[in-house]
Amino acid sequence: MSIDDWRRRIDEIDLKLIALLNERARCALEIGREKHLQGLPVYQPARENEILANVERENPGPLADTAIRRLFERIIDEARSLERAAQHEDTAAVQAKERPKTRS
Amino acid sequence: MSIDDWRRRIDEIDLKLIALLNERARCALEIGREKHLQGLPVYQPARENEILANVERENPGPLADTAIRRLFERIIDEARSLERAAQHEDTAAVQAKERPKTRS
Repeated sequence: MSIDDWRRRIDEIDLKLIALLNERARCALEIGREKHLQGLPVYQPARENEILANVERENPGPLADTAIRRLFERIIDEARSLERAAQHEDTAAVQAKERPKTRS
Repeated sequence: MSIDDWRRRIDEIDLKLIALLNERARCALEIGREKHLQGLPVYQPARENEILANVERENPGPLADTAIRRLFERIIDEARSLERAAQHEDTAAVQAKERPKTRS
């Protein structure tokens, strides 16, 4: 296979990665909403450590375990940002509709 | 669905992400070998910009385009590290087998 062939294969993989990363983000948003309803904090270090331990354990290579860990740290970080943004939107919506409340 | 249900779904997605990220890394290694044979540099900014433009264009959300771009910058960065490491191994193997050569 030529460099161009391998690149086409990477482009196909990237489409699948985009779909999965967004599907994962949707799940994180649902979790964020549920945490908000239950008054739980967005940042739950035990769960984040569980995810990182899982991905290191399941990693078959050729990516090093440290590399896959770094990538998932970024993926988790983006999910957390999205959860936070959604919580602020929910809070703003509640404030607008129901009661005056100071923003945390 | 409960938080635990969503988390199980994320764990399933993560297994697929691990597989795809490693499949992508294998492609990058093949490209790295081919570049090495052809005397091309590992870092090819035009191709990296093409990938980033692709993923931003294809991103359906809920991840922001800036978020998906940041994630792929990291994915590309890990691929480049792996290509570099493989080229050094290839160079070392050639040095050992064929001819004395100063390491770049």
